[in-house]
Amino acid sequence: MTRAETPLGPKHALVRQARELARERRAREESGLAHMEGVRLVEEALAAGVEVAYLLYTPELAERPRGAELLRTAAARGVPLHPVTPEALERAADTRTPQGVVGVFRPLSRTLDDLGPGLVLVLDGLQDPGNLGTAIRSLEAMGGGGAVVAGGVDPYNPKVVRGAMGSLFRLPVVKRPIGDALAGLRAAGRRIYLAEAGGALAPWAVDLARGAAVVVGSEAAGPSPEARALADGVVSIPMAGPTESLNAGVAASLLAYEAMRQQGAAAPPALSH
Amino acid sequence: MTRAETPLGPKHALVRQARELARERRAREESGLAHMEGVRLVEEALAAGVEVAYLLYTPELAERPRGAELLRTAAARGVPLHPVTPEALERAADTRTPQGVVGVFRPLSRTLDDLGPGLVLVLDGLQDPGNLGTAIRSLEAMGGGGAVVAGGVDPYNPKVVRGAMGSLFRLPVVKRPIGDALAGLRAAGRRIYLAEAGGALAPWAVDLARGAAVVVGSEAAGPSPEARALADGVVSIPMAGPTESLNAGVAASLLAYEAMRQQGAAAPPALSH
Repeated sequence: MTRAETPLGPKHALVRQARELARERRAREESGLAHMEGVRLVEEALAAGVEVAYLLYTPELAERPRGAELLRTAAARGVPLHPVTPEALERAADTRTPQGVVGVFRPLSRTLDDLGPGLVLVLDGLQDPGNLGTAIRSLEAMGGGGAVVAGGVDPYNPKVVRGAMGSLFRLPVVKRPIGDALAGLRAAGRRIYLAEAGGALAPWAVDLARGAAVVVGSEAAGPSPEARALADGVVSIPMAGPTESLNAGVAASLLAYEAMRQQGAAAPPALSH
Repeated sequence: MTRAETPLGPKHALVRQARELARERRAREESGLAHMEGVRLVEEALAAGVEVAYLLYTPELAERPRGAELLRTAAARGVPLHPVTPEALERAADTRTPQGVVGVFRPLSRTLDDLGPGLVLVLDGLQDPGNLGTAIRSLEAMGGGGAVVAGGVDPYNPKVVRGAMGSLFRLPVVKRPIGDALAGLRAAGRRIYLAEAGGALAPWAVDLARGAAVVVGSEAAGPSPEARALADGVVSIPMAGPTESLNAGVAASLLAYEAMRQQGAAAPPALSH
């Protein structure tokens, strides 16, 4: 399905661009492009209709059935495909196991208007890419309305892209400074809560299913002063024992679950036990 | 508080033992000892009354107030303290940032009788130490009855110890093969559920707060055949969208949350909104 081409070497401009997009936030922000790798993730990007600028692949990928199928799908979508040497793929990759394929894609530019009616999580300065990826993945899995990423780690950091496991291609994810984000959400009629220890409201005491946004603060500093000033209330996950806090990815997942539970439990029960 | 001693070098037997305990499951299983590192984790072990066999520390630790306090507390508990060179600490450590202290401790040997009345999670062949650590941490935070670790990664793998952030020192954690574990839980009157996609029961449709055990299967293979044969039902976290599954640490955390919510929501609400 592709012409026999000489594989590109490690110094080719596309290989260097992919490498730079994996490593440098500024390169992503200036170009509006981002990096992904691995068969599954590229499959999910194509299935979600993401604009893929190009794929770099090793000839060995094309010899595996799933790899060949991936390349066929991409070719049918008009994605430029470039064979590269194994050394070049290693240069272009973020991990040691890119599974023969690295891709460059153009994330959709989303606004607050793109958020759905379900729970919105405002991820306020998260530093850990694993936590941000988990939050985005769980929020999509639980039918949330979308995420606002306010400062902290870039949602298109390759570790976030991998951690979100494709959810980043589907869930509306909006980058906005915290003050702007909260003003916009408030103007759209959302109630705004902080997630933090010691608050007055258990998650099940608050309607999270519709019209709510919850600010999950950074691992080290908690929610920012702007968020504190604007919030309608503080939601706390009750803790037993001396555990001080949950990691931000888990806290976000529990809130997303609670919103889904409220919606599901309010519907007529489909099953008895 | 400690005599001025010549710091031990990288080849000292205790340094080598600590290194081996960090790296080799068999060394842990044969000795009944385990490895921990970092100021916070050692503080938590001491506060929980864990039997600490010895601490290795750099003289620099004793010069920081929190480090000096840690050494005083350990000395008052009769813990043998050994200053080591920075090179020796690096050898003995599992991470690059042991913060000046590595400890060897003796985990309590727990049985199924030690489990509390709250939710028991049976972690069936989990492979990822981060997932196992998260599951144990969340279960303790949510007041669960304890965890049974059936195969998979060793709960005293240093990555699990760090991921659990002290919860491993407090929550009952029982190592048992899956068949034994489920037979014992059943004999103790517990209802046994599998957590798996496509099941008939939403978590909120099942009483998880008392007398329940939920089997969370491995990331790759799901629950083992023994667990399937013995379970009273399958609990599924409903998913929206194409996400196939949550990671095992998040799934375990959501179940622990649901058990806590059922208990909390059943109590008279402390607060209105």
